[in-house]
This record gives sequence, C-alpha cells and structure tokens, in this order.
Amino acid sequence: MILKELELYLDGVFKKNLALSWDKAGLQIGNPGNDIKKILVTLNVVDDVVNEAAGLKSDLILSHHPLIFDPLDTILSSKPGEKEILNLVKNNIAVYSAHTNYDSMPGGLNELLASLIGLVEMDIIEKSEEQFDGAGIGRLGRLRESKPFKIFGEEMKKKLDIEGFTWMCGDEKNAGDRIVRRIAVICGSASSLAGTLAEIDCDTVIVGEIGYHSALKISESGKLIISLGHGSSEKLAVDGIYKILEDFFRENKINIGISKSRKGCNSWRYRIE
Amino acid sequence: MILKELELYLDGVFKKNLALSWDKAGLQIGNPGNDIKKILVTLNVVDDVVNEAAGLKSDLILSHHPLIFDPLDTILSSKPGEKEILNLVKNNIAVYSAHTNYDSMPGGLNELLASLIGLVEMDIIEKSEEQFDGAGIGRLGRLRESKPFKIFGEEMKKKLDIEGFTWMCGDEKNAGDRIVRRIAVICGSASSLAGTLAEIDCDTVIVGEIGYHSALKISESGKLIISLGHGSSEKLAVDGIYKILEDFFRENKINIGISKSRKGCNSWRYRIE
Amino acid sequence: MILKELELYLDGVFKKNLALSWDKAGLQIGNPGNDIKKILVTLNVVDDVVNEAAGLKSDLILSHHPLIFDPLDTILSSKPGEKEILNLVKNNIAVYSAHTNYDSMPGGLNELLASLIGLVEMDIIEKSEEQFDGAGIGRLGRLRESKPFKIFGEEMKKKLDIEGFTWMCGDEKNAGDRIVRRIAVICGSASSLAGTLAEIDCDTVIVGEIGYHSALKISESGKLIISLGHGSSEKLAVDGIYKILEDFFRENKINIGISKSRKGCNSWRYRIE
Amino acid sequence: MILKELELYLDGVFKKNLALSWDKAGLQIGNPGNDIKKILVTLNVVDDVVNEAAGLKSDLILSHHPLIFDPLDTILSSKPGEKEILNLVKNNIAVYSAHTNYDSMPGGLNELLASLIGLVEMDIIEKSEEQFDGAGIGRLGRLRESKPFKIFGEEMKKKLDIEGFTWMCGDEKNAGDRIVRRIAVICGSASSLAGTLAEIDCDTVIVGEIGYHSALKISESGKLIISLGHGSSEKLAVDGIYKILEDFFRENKINIGISKSRKGCNSWRYRIE
Amino acid sequence: MILKELELYLDGVFKKNLALSWDKAGLQIGNPGNDIKKILVTLNVVDDVVNEAAGLKSDLILSHHPLIFDPLDTILSSKPGEKEILNLVKNNIAVYSAHTNYDSMPGGLNELLASLIGLVEMDIIEKSEEQFDGAGIGRLGRLRESKPFKIFGEEMKKKLDIEGFTWMCGDEKNAGDRIVRRIAVICGSASSLAGTLAEIDCDTVIVGEIGYHSALKISESGKLIISLGHGSSEKLAVDGIYKILEDFFRENKINIGISKSRKGCNSWRYRIE
Amino acid sequence: MILKELELYLDGVFKKNLALSWDKAGLQIGNPGNDIKKILVTLNVVDDVVNEAAGLKSDLILSHHPLIFDPLDTILSSKPGEKEILNLVKNNIAVYSAHTNYDSMPGGLNELLASLIGLVEMDIIEKSEEQFDGAGIGRLGRLRESKPFKIFGEEMKKKLDIEGFTWMCGDEKNAGDRIVRRIAVICGSASSLAGTLAEIDCDTVIVGEIGYHSALKISESGKLIISLGHGSSEKLAVDGIYKILEDFFRENKINIGISKSRKGCNSWRYRIE
Repeated sequence: MILKELELYLDGVFKKNLALSWDKAGLQIGNPGNDIKKILVTLNVVDDVVNEAAGLKSDLILSHHPLIFDPLDTILSSKPGEKEILNLVKNNIAVYSAHTNYDSMPGGLNELLASLIGLVEMDIIEKSEEQFDGAGIGRLGRLRESKPFKIFGEEMKKKLDIEGFTWMCGDEKNAGDRIVRRIAVICGSASSLAGTLAEIDCDTVIVGEIGYHSALKISESGKLIISLGHGSSEKLAVDGIYKILEDFFRENKINIGISKSRKGCNSWRYRIE
Repeated sequence: MILKELELYLDGVFKKNLALSWDKAGLQIGNPGNDIKKILVTLNVVDDVVNEAAGLKSDLILSHHPLIFDPLDTILSSKPGEKEILNLVKNNIAVYSAHTNYDSMPGGLNELLASLIGLVEMDIIEKSEEQFDGAGIGRLGRLRESKPFKIFGEEMKKKLDIEGFTWMCGDEKNAGDRIVRRIAVICGSASSLAGTLAEIDCDTVIVGEIGYHSALKISESGKLIISLGHGSSEKLAVDGIYKILEDFFRENKINIGISKSRKGCNSWRYRIE
Repeated sequence: MILKELELYLDGVFKKNLALSWDKAGLQIGNPGNDIKKILVTLNVVDDVVNEAAGLKSDLILSHHPLIFDPLDTILSSKPGEKEILNLVKNNIAVYSAHTNYDSMPGGLNELLASLIGLVEMDIIEKSEEQFDGAGIGRLGRLRESKPFKIFGEEMKKKLDIEGFTWMCGDEKNAGDRIVRRIAVICGSASSLAGTLAEIDCDTVIVGEIGYHSALKISESGKLIISLGHGSSEKLAVDGIYKILEDFFRENKINIGISKSRKGCNSWRYRIE
Repeated sequence: MILKELELYLDGVFKKNLALSWDKAGLQIGNPGNDIKKILVTLNVVDDVVNEAAGLKSDLILSHHPLIFDPLDTILSSKPGEKEILNLVKNNIAVYSAHTNYDSMPGGLNELLASLIGLVEMDIIEKSEEQFDGAGIGRLGRLRESKPFKIFGEEMKKKLDIEGFTWMCGDEKNAGDRIVRRIAVICGSASSLAGTLAEIDCDTVIVGEIGYHSALKISESGKLIISLGHGSSEKLAVDGIYKILEDFFRENKINIGISKSRKGCNSWRYRIE
Repeated sequence: MILKELELYLDGVFKKNLALSWDKAGLQIGNPGNDIKKILVTLNVVDDVVNEAAGLKSDLILSHHPLIFDPLDTILSSKPGEKEILNLVKNNIAVYSAHTNYDSMPGGLNELLASLIGLVEMDIIEKSEEQFDGAGIGRLGRLRESKPFKIFGEEMKKKLDIEGFTWMCGDEKNAGDRIVRRIAVICGSASSLAGTLAEIDCDTVIVGEIGYHSALKISESGKLIISLGHGSSEKLAVDGIYKILEDFFRENKINIGISKSRKGCNSWRYRIE
Repeated sequence: MILKELELYLDGVFKKNLALSWDKAGLQIGNPGNDIKKILVTLNVVDDVVNEAAGLKSDLILSHHPLIFDPLDTILSSKPGEKEILNLVKNNIAVYSAHTNYDSMPGGLNELLASLIGLVEMDIIEKSEEQFDGAGIGRLGRLRESKPFKIFGEEMKKKLDIEGFTWMCGDEKNAGDRIVRRIAVICGSASSLAGTLAEIDCDTVIVGEIGYHSALKISESGKLIISLGHGSSEKLAVDGIYKILEDFFRENKINIGISKSRKGCNSWRYRIE
C-alpha cells in the first residue's frame, strides 16, 4: 500500500486528532509515495531499531515516541536524535508515530496499563479537549481487592514484567503494610498533571516518571507514589499497537507484514549484567 | 544572634550571588528580628522536618531545597507545600535555603558528590555567570583507576550509602563489563544540561535525575548514564552544610547550636519495608 | 461551621465565578478544617485589622481586597503584605476575599455606590464575561434631578460620608455651575476602563482612582471627572458584605457571629488631625 | 532658528539620552524645516494650550508631558489626545517634550521639587542607567529642621502653591504630631518605584501619584505617605524649563521668544468654584 | 454628508468586519464632523495624491492601503509616511481605507483580479474567519481554456495593462511551453499564505509579491510562480472601489462627487523613461 | 580531508562568528566523519543542485543560502525544502552554508556587489555587532562619475549580467534623467533595514528585494529605488565563494576539488523562453 494512503488509515485508527497540541504525532519522515510492505512496531526509534528495520527490510517504523521532538536546525550524524534520521533515510525507511493520541484513546496506553495493574471502575483523569467519549490522559480506579503495598508491589512487577520500581511516601516506616486501594495511573511522564495528582482522591499514584519536587508534593499529601520508569510503563505499547494494526489489517484485508521490535523498549535498568 | 545579622553571614558563607537567576535561595520565611539559637540542617522542608525542628526547639531550618519554588497565591493547610508554611509560622521557625549557590560553590554539593564518587582532575561543566573561580554546575573528571561498570556500581552504592540506582546505555549486553573511566557528575536535576551531556567528552554520566528522552539521547551518544535519584544524589548536602556552618561558627565564635535532620532526606526507595 | 463548608457557601453567595481572570478572590489563607464561629468584615487586611480580629477572637476575616495580590516568593515579617500573613497564621485566623466578583454582582459594590450617588436607570459599563444577568464593572445612569456640580458635590460628600474628593475638567472656570446629569460610576481603580470612559455618553465620570493621563483624556473629551479615592469609594463594602452575610446566615439558620472592622477602611485623608 | 537645529540644542540642554527606555521624549510633531521664533512652555499639551499657542503665534510648544504616549493608529478629531494633533498641525505648531530626562537630570524636576520641599543632603533614589553623575528618578534627603506633620503640611502647601494634598499612614490618630524628618520625594507617578518606597529608609514619602495598594504597603511599613497630585507635583516644570531655556538662549545669543502657558498645568482640584 | 454618517455607510458597503485582525481598515485621519462633498479614490495615499486631492478640493481620500500601518510615535514632515499626514491635516482632507476587507469580500479585489486573469469555477484559498459566504483571501480556479505560459503571459499583460512581470519555475528550459491550466491568484503580498501555496493543487501561482525563499519553495514544488508586482496586482482597486461607491451613491441618492486618482498607483517599473 | 576538520577551516575562512543571531550558517547536514574530496559551490540547495552534485560525485555542497531556515518537524519527500534533504542524505552529500557572515565580511557579498556596481569610498550601512573592522550589512558609496539613471541602469545590467530589474521613484516623469550619484546597496533582502534606507543620505537605493510598502516609503523620501531580484543580486556569490576557497586551498596545500554549480542561481525571470 502506498504510504500516503496508509497514513490516512493510521490517522484514523490511532485517532490522530486526539494528540495534544504540542505533540508531533503522525507521519514524520519518509516518502509518502513509497510502497509499504512491512512495518516494525517499536517504543523508540533508536539506532538499533533502525538497523533492525533495515535487517528485516521494513519500509515503515511505527513508533510510540516521535523521533523529532524539538524542531531541527541541523541533521548531523554526530548528534543523537539526528544520526538516526540519516540512517533511516539511507535505508529508505519511513517513520509514523502514534503518541499522545494513542496514550489517550479508548483501548490506548493509559487504559492498557491501568487494566494490567488491575484497576476497575476507571475514570479518566484529564479528559481530551476533543469531544470524544472515553479519551484522555491517566486513569483513576480501584483494585478489585485492596491489598498491602508489599504484596501489591510484588504482583505488579510480575504483571508488568519489570525489573523494579521506586516509590516514596511521607511515613516510610511500615510502608509495606499500607493498603493500596484506590489508584491513579499515568503512563510516561506525569509532569503536566503533578498539581492534579496531589489533590486527586486516591491512596496511591503510579507514574512512568515525575520530577522529584512534584513527587514530594504528592507524598506530602499523604499518598504513596510509585515510579515505574518511563520505558517500563510504556513498553506494553508495542503489543498494544501491534494488536490494533493486526486487527485492522485483517478486517480490511490489507496485506502488510508487521513485526515487533526487540530493541526499542529502552528502560532504566536496575540489575547490571 | 538576630536573624537579620545571621542572614548576612549565611549569604556570604554560602555565596548567595552564585544562585541561578530562577532560584529562590536565601531567607524565605520568618521574622528577621528573631533571635536564633538553634539551627536544623535538612535537604527538604517537609512536615516531618518542621515537627522535628519544633521538637528540638530550633529557630531556623537551613535547607538545601527552598520551600517556596512556585510563587504562592494562597497559604492553605489543605495544600502540600503550603501547610508546611502554616506549621512553621505557628512554631515561629524561620527558613533559609542554600540551593543552586551551594550546588555551584567550591566545596559545594557538585564537588562533594564528584569527590565521593572518586573523580580527580575535575573541571566544571557549566561555569557560573558570576565571576568566581571554581564555581559552576556539574563536575567532569576521571577515576584514578578505571574499572568495569559492575564493580564501579557496587563501590559507588557503598560510598554514597544508597539503596540502589538505575542506568541506561545503548548496548545493554555485557554492560557490566564497560569500562568506566571519564565521568560527568551532576547532582539533583540535570534537565537544563541535557544537551551538553550528550556531547560532552566522557564515557559515563551520573545524575540525580533526568527526563527519559534526554537520557535516551545521552545513551544514543554511546555513553552509560546512571540516575542516582534526586534525593540520593543530594543527601550528602546535610553533612556538607553542617560542616560549613560548624567551621564558620567556631572560627567566628558564634554560639548557635546546629543539628542534622533525620527526616528530610526524602529519596525514591527501592526496597519495601 | 467547618471553613471548607463555609467556603462553598461564600463562593455561591458572592458569586465567585464572576471574579475577573487576574483576580485572587476566595479562600486565601488558613486551615479549611477549622471551625468558624466569628467573622470580621473589612475592606483591607492590614495589621490593625489582624489585631482587631485577634482581639475579637474572630476565626475568619472576610475582606473585599485580597491580602495576596502579587504571588509571594517569601513570607517575612520585614515586608508589608507579608508580615500580616505571619500575624494571621500565628493567631489562627483565615482570610476569604470577595473582590471583583462582589464589585460586579447585582447588589454588589458598583451598584451600591451608584445607587448611593443617586443614579437611576442604570446600565452596566462592562458586562461580565460569565453569562450572568445584571453583573459587570461600572454603572452608567442619570440623576433623578440634574443639578449644578457645586450642589451635587456637597450632597455626594454627605451621602458617601467622605472628607473630600478631587476633580478635573477642561474649562475650570465656573465649573461649579456645570450641570451634572448623566454619570458613569466605577468603584476602586478605573484604569482598565480609561479608554471606554473617554468615549462613553455622559457628562460626569466618578471613579475610585485613575491615572493622571487617563483623567486628562476624559477631561479633554469634555467631561467632568471626580476622583473619590479608592478607599472612600469602597468603604461601603463593609456594610454591604455584612448585610449579605447577615441575611444569608439568618435564612439558612447558620450560627456564626459577624462584626464590622473599625480599622480596615484605609483612605487617602484630606484633613490632618 | 530652524527647528532641526534647535532640536539638537534642546536634546543637549535637556540631556535627552537620560530619558527612560519607554519614554517618548524629544521632537514629536511638526516640520523640522520650520523657522522657530516663539516657544510656549507648558506641562501638558491640551487643546487650551494649542489655542493659547496659536493666539500667541508660537511656533513650538515645549512640554514636559509628551502628547503621544501610546502609539497612534488613527488621528481623529473625535478622540482626546488626537484632536490636539489636528489642531496643532493646522496651526503649524511643533511639539518638543523634555520628559523623564528632565525629571532625572541634575537641576531637573525631581531635584527642583525636593529642594522646594526643603530637602538637604539629597541622594538619588534610582540612578539613571546612563553614566551620568547626579541623574536619576526621585530624591531622598532630610529636612534641615524636622517638624510635626501638621506644620510641615501647611508650609509645604504654601511653598508649592497647591490647593491641597492627601495622605495616609498606619496609625492616623495624632498623625499631625508625627515628626517629619527624612523624606523620599518622587514627582509625577511613583508606580514603578512602589516596591523601593516601602523599604527605603525614611519616615515620609511624597509622590505625585501612586496606586492605592502601593500606598497601603508604604503605610503598612510605618511611613507617612503624601500624594500631591501628579499635576501639582510637576507644575513647577514650567518655571524650571523656562529658566533653563532663557539662560541657554541668552548665553548663546539665540533670539527666540519664550512664554509660559497659563493653561496647561491641569491638576486635580479640591475646591469647586 | 457628515463624515461620521458616511463612515457607517462605508463600513457596511466595504464590509469592514471582514478586515484581518492586524489590519487598520476604516476611518483613519480627519474630523468626523466634516461635511464630505468630494471623494478621491486611490491605491496609495502618497504626497502626490494628497496634492491631487487638494487640487480637486476633495474632502476625503478613499484608499485601498491604509496610510498608518505601524502605529506612530511621531508626526514629522521629515519622515515618509508622516509628512503625508501633515499635508492632509493642513488641507482638511480625511482618509478612509478599505483594505483586507475589500481584498476578501465577494466582488472584492482578489475576485476582480482572478476574473480578469480568466479564472472560472473559483474557490477561496483562505476563507474569512467571519461567517460570511464567498469572502476570503486568494482565489483558486481554472482557465476556461488551458494554454502555454508564453501565450498566457502575453495575454495577461494586456488584460491587466501592466508593463511586465517576473516568474520562476524549477525547470526553466522550455518554460514557455508549460501549460497553464489551474491557477492560484493572490493580490498584494502573498507572504502569509506561502506555506499553503506550495501545497495547493494547481500548476501556476500568481501573486502581487512574495519573498524569494517562499517563491523558491513554490517553484521546488513543481509549480510556475508569477510575480505581478504589488501595485500592478492591485491598481484595479481604483476602478473597483469607484464602481462600488458610484452604485451605492446612486441607489441611495447620495450626492457626493467621486474621482479616480491619477497618481496613487505606484508600481515597480520595468522601462526607464 | 575529514569534514569535521574542514568545517573548522570554513568557519574561520568565512568568519562564521559574523553571522546574524537568527541565521543558520555553518555545517547543517551530513556526516562530520566523511572524507571530502569534491565541493560544489552554489547559491541555493535546490533539487537540481543535489542531482548535479551527485552527478559530479561531490561530497559537500557549499551554499550561500542555508537549506534549513525554519526548524523542521518533519522530513518528507512531499514537501519542498524537505525532499532535498532526503535526496542529499541518500547521496551522502553534506551541506555547509556561508550566509549572513559571507554577506557581511570584508571581501564578502555586499562589498562585491557594491564594487561591481561601481561604488567607491564605501561605508558600511549596518556594522556587525561582533568587533570586526570592515564587516556589516550593506554598503554606501558614490559612483566615480555620476550619470543619468537611464545610462546607469543599462551599464549595471551588463556589469551584473542580469535580464532586467525594476524600479520606483516619487516622480516617474523623466526619471531616466535623474542623476545617480550616491548609492546604498544591499544584496538579498533589505527588509530589516527598510527604516534606515528611507533616512540614509543618498539618491539611489539598490536592493535584492524589499517589500512594497517599504519601497514606497523610500520612494516618498525622494529617492530612486532599484530592485535587482534576490537571486540576481547574489548570484555573484558563487564566483566569490569559489575564489575564496580556491585561494585558501592553494595557500594551505589542501587537495579538494571545487566546482561551480550551473543550476542553483534561481532568479526571477523577465523573458519567457
């Protein structure tokens, strides 16, 4: 399928109009006239992923994080964030990103993460400005069964398949016995919602990442705050995006191959190997 | 000593003119006419620290982090960051902060952290705008003896007395065998220097905290990046500030008691107790 | 009544949603969990008023002018505008302000002042952005009987119980014989409406205060402009707010005492005592 | 003398480079090629002054206040501040203003006002950015003999030949007995220096005009604040400018007539005639 | 007719509410109380046009381009753009401009130019924000018969009665044989629409003027771009405005004379005389 | 030579520190580690030039105009200004630009153009902020022999080898007989200097391009203004840059081939072929 045509489908499937105003979602790099036969799905477009795509003869990388965040004045191989572009162009690989729109959409990343953690009766923390039912950043809900933090933490690590997480709360003594009941979940960076999180009605806040001073305010408000790591909170995007693509292609009888990247889920590591 | 007089001394000792333009260093809360007999030194002014100070009958909290970061429109006990103010005022406790000036000064927090990590032949990463020899944010240097990351990491945890740290690098396989030789160190948040850190000439970057996308750029530049946690990278400020005060009071025969807070070094935790 | 609950009532009674975007109306200082038994109503929260409230054992000062206008970086007893906060907190007194919302609301300060001056058939000069009938800044109307400025001025001084006022007009000779008929009235500062006032269809403009160059433009447009003084134009807020509170508490059987401050109506003085 | 040539002299005599960055000092309206034979000196360029100049066959109005403050999009006879321009142009009268430069210069308006009030041992409150000895806004000094406010006030009214003034202070009772000793004086509007005036070391602040909330802060800092009225504090500019011109023309044998306007000293009035 | 009354008519006839937000359309200079007997229609208000109006005893110049674009701080005969104002005021001539509203309105300048060039089936390139059918900047359409650029160019020069034009395209060789079929037309400056013009679906772009780098982008997008010159693309405004006025005055039995200026259509010239 | 090393030489030779603050001069696209054997010099980096460079096996395009002006959010082959980047990267060709620094430097483009037009006794119109003798934008000078515009124009066309130019002046009648004597010359766009050009002391202004309203002001100031076209005023940059490179490589025994592009001097055309 010609990329130009595929772009329109992807804009619809991933509800591009839900992207936040500052975001750079959508088709970012490439030749819209190219024929796309193979897609590689990834969290990040790092050099390893470009090489992986080239090895797989993928024509398009579909990433959660856009490659170009800050507008570019130069494209030099000596700069991280720019050398990947040179590598992509030389290998004739396009890049399309489903970012804050995929975070927000029903069935999107926030919802996915909150479900995996076990939330039920979910509300949206910050509704999308676009009139769209069920879309927005963050999810607030309760566990079906409340449990002590010590047990909750162990279970969450397994469910999310992560090496570790960090946490903070006002009174650290016996923190393991705190009951986790009502949780606010935000994948990726929670900075823009820091004020809301200190006032929201819950006992536990789980984020991808958040600045220390914001975390301190949340902890001073009496809550337990858990930081999963940005990458760890979003690596399930690869499966999530893959699934949406797969369903869409099957339903519409589109013949494009899809692979999941084994390289682009960069996360803060805990163990040294 | 009357606080107004003490303030002038502290401004000199902690070189207040080195504070960055956006910073809120110096005397922030209290009655400059009060007599100060006891000081409590802390990283953060959280409620536990105010209570500690009240229990110790301290008249002044000398903190690294200012209590008021964002200018205040209200002072309400229902808001974290404001309730502490109400508590301080009721207990007649003043607050003075030595923040980015103490980060930058010779013998200050960046230098302290870099020394403890083992750096020698140190340069300053971003020199202070004020004409002042040896002041600035971040330190760049080499280890006396280079060593594999696995060993370096274990030693560092012991030296800094921290529960853990997280790390990232482009090629994670055998990352433990990477040789750590030349290191850039920045205590606290490294966000403002993210661009510099990707280009700086070193193999390892150690920060208090840094955003995920900035970390990814540093890692894509081929470096190993280590995140200590903001609090873990700065808790040595308590000893550092205590020492400076103690020396200064002794030399000048000033009779003011000093204690170290046991509460205000809030850090991201790894283990659940 | 718990302050948190009272706050909700006051927001409704004084129609807080009418406050201008830059305004700081509402609960500003205190502990929302406190029990409120006595309220002191005032124009300004100056130190004398805080002491008065402490003497009366008032738990809440309800002021027209907010105490915090410009966001605060410090709270020091050496600064006017900050020492009052320290004094309030130590005396456990909360502050709630009904400012531009009370100026604008039907039955509010602009309407009160215009009525007392004798305006009938009133229009609103600048309607509130909020959809709300009868709300806005300034009132334009006519006197039931037009009269010479000399007589009007004397009568107004008595009605408003003020020591004096100042005035300006293009042709000062025989200004006392000018007929005052159609009047624009703005309590407090009229700076934001200066352009409107030069073009509005009236013969006389009465303001709390206005910059000299704006006054000159109004006077060059052929109008008589009268400056009452900010405080003199708003001191009737104390009676006005008291009355609204008294009615509301009676109707709702709320048992909270109310006093009028005898201290906080600071005005520019004419006579030296 | 051709206006273009005269402009250069005036720029020098009134030290135009001392004008504040936002100011519109200098030649503002007219034909630089015109021959100037007669100058009318005034505080304001109002319509009465333009007519007076036309009657006197003056070619140039030399004012303290610029006629154009806010840049113009239209020049219509229906707007105050614009109709004067049409009147000037039709009568072929140019306008030159010596504004904040004349306020600041040695022998300028602030110095003149402070001297007339009786200040000795004067300092400058805010020094000019331009390197220029003895220039700046506001003067701080002491009275040769301190005296009670009641007596000081009466004497000042006579010296300045003004109808009245208004004042404010924290404790109004017996304010007439306050001793006036050390005074800060600012002609015209003192808004930009409000913060400074609350902290400056003096017992009395005398301004042309100042906003109510700024005045309240000064009064809360324990000082007596006196507001003369913008026009009343600056009407001595007419004599001052006249004198400088007269001296300069005599010394340089320039044959241009000078008159003082009898119309343009618009002031807030106290008495109704 | 009194100018104030005429202004209201003109605002309606030329649909002033369609003017862009940054524009200065409408009555700009003069005395709204003057009686208007004769109007001179022009593209620009240059000195020659003011003299022409004075010679014709016109009371009002109705121009396409406003005389005051950038707000004025001075009105001096030594400055172009200001000396014309002095000349106008002395001759008691008012100025009214129908600018971007006349560009945009149905029957306005963009439509007129596009029709004369031969466009049919026209669309609007950028619709007016005001809800108004058929209004906006630029017109996109096709020629009734497509033809080679060489022939099209010659015909257009005759139709528009212009001395010349300039053009650019990617492949200049045999550019004369390019077929001109679908055209985007923008009178005056096309800078604000440069991005749109590179992407719009047409083979030829015709503008009044456009910056070189924008033109290069349009030419790199494969299009032929023709620059008529700002004046040459808008001189038909004189006939256009004249016709609208004439019809309106006849229909409404208004007795005001109208002339077309012979001076104010300043254009970039090709031939030297 | 490795590009990284060559870049340093070029920054020195073309005095990169003279570039204006908003400019994007220097190395913009490519791999600093590449070996450079052949350079293609051009005015613009359009697609034809990229293809030319590829055909010539050039490793580096040295252009006057940077390819990236506005920072990029996407790099798509469907957008002019971006497709060239894709083409460059695929062909492994780097881009270095000597822009406003080359305009300003002694021996640079402004000086070259002014010399070719015949100016002697040249001054700089706007000196560079960098302390550097003889650098700045625009040159002001006189012709060795003054001559009528008709003759001057014909000679200039020949000297500059251009197809035509356009001009404007207040009194067009007999404009051909105006004497051209003292000339201000600005290559490229003169927009930023429009105000200066209306007041500068000369009879003729020659620019690359300038907005119509600015041109009108210059023409209303009594001057003749000539617009060469941006490309026509700068195409001599190719020879100029070539010569500087050639001399530098010879003197430093650097073995890099240099060609002049035959494609990248896009100019507004007058004749249709």
